[in-house]
Amino acid sequence: MVTKLPSRQDTKLALMQAGMDIMLEKGYTNTGIQEVLSSLGVPKGSFYHYFESKENFAVAIIRQQDSEYNLAIDSLLNDSSITPLQRLKKYCQDSKNGLVSQECRKGCLIGNLSQEMSDQSEVLRKELSIVMKNRSRQFARCIEEGQKTGEITQICPADKLADFFLCGWNGAVMLAKTMKDITPMETFIELVFDHFLKARA
Amino acid sequence: MVTKLPSRQDTKLALMQAGMDIMLEKGYTNTGIQEVLSSLGVPKGSFYHYFESKENFAVAIIRQQDSEYNLAIDSLLNDSSITPLQRLKKYCQDSKNGLVSQECRKGCLIGNLSQEMSDQSEVLRKELSIVMKNRSRQFARCIEEGQKTGEITQICPADKLADFFLCGWNGAVMLAKTMKDITPMETFIELVFDHFLKARA
Repeated sequence: MVTKLPSRQDTKLALMQAGMDIMLEKGYTNTGIQEVLSSLGVPKGSFYHYFESKENFAVAIIRQQDSEYNLAIDSLLNDSSITPLQRLKKYCQDSKNGLVSQECRKGCLIGNLSQEMSDQSEVLRKELSIVMKNRSRQFARCIEEGQKTGEITQICPADKLADFFLCGWNGAVMLAKTMKDITPMETFIELVFDHFLKARA
Repeated sequence: MVTKLPSRQDTKLALMQAGMDIMLEKGYTNTGIQEVLSSLGVPKGSFYHYFESKENFAVAIIRQQDSEYNLAIDSLLNDSSITPLQRLKKYCQDSKNGLVSQECRKGCLIGNLSQEMSDQSEVLRKELSIVMKNRSRQFARCIEEGQKTGEITQICPADKLADFFLCGWNGAVMLAKTMKDITPMETFIELVFDHFLKARA
């Protein structure tokens, strides 16, 4: 039997996946490179074959995560079998179910790192800022579609509503993690979708 | 000339103040006890005369901060010279000006620690959860007053609107710190006070 040795690219991706899992639970500062290597049985010292530094490792993880989010959220927000408002609501409900299944732990790596690292690392802050802007743009496109069909309020341009939506949702996730209770996310969903984003009759 | 030696209580408070300043900028994990002691010239080793552990130190800081916030916010939200909605808006504008003066750094210790530590320390999470509930209760009292006078929307009970307000504001601060740009806070203020919290005419 021939055992295929893992390629350099496989190992790099495995390190990023392991790093993401640990960072999601513990944050950037509390994540040790040694812990990441040990979790995969990758020998000590080989980390720097793949990444220049821990910061560079985190940048790679953030970019990977962003590209995965982009695809998943695009697919959800372009689902023409439901209305734009229903798509945004589904996004929130899926995230809420995700947090429930994690017992209100972990949450979103991007949100977590934003809070932890925005004042600590200009390199990471810039990466996180790009991700936030990507997210807001995706929401804005969906909101704009809903404004055109008359489903979503036109009190202001879609990009402003999208920023508001992004802020509120990030805050709701943060509060749910602090309370270990998803009520803040449910309150956000109720108020935003039953009232604030809905066009007035 | 008689120089009054600092009392035990003075030193304890000075340590808490120094710890708070450093923790606000660097977070809990990145704050070293030695750095706190050095900033005051307090001899190494004396920390444990005042606090059992770093975690216990952080609990003392969180409680101190909560009690200061309680007083300041109560005074602002009970200012009967302006309407309840104007008081809440003033709270946001004051916080926004605070973040501007810090060049979008630091932000709110409670929000920062909530994001960083909610999964790391059950002791800190419980303390932070109490602070969040205190804040929400203060907002709810003010919102309820505005609902009674007909100024604030009655789409749902005041405590739910208060939770929403707390989430949204925390998210707006987080995003402003990530972007190093206060636009998300201004968007929140505009949408919440010109539209979402206002009673419909």
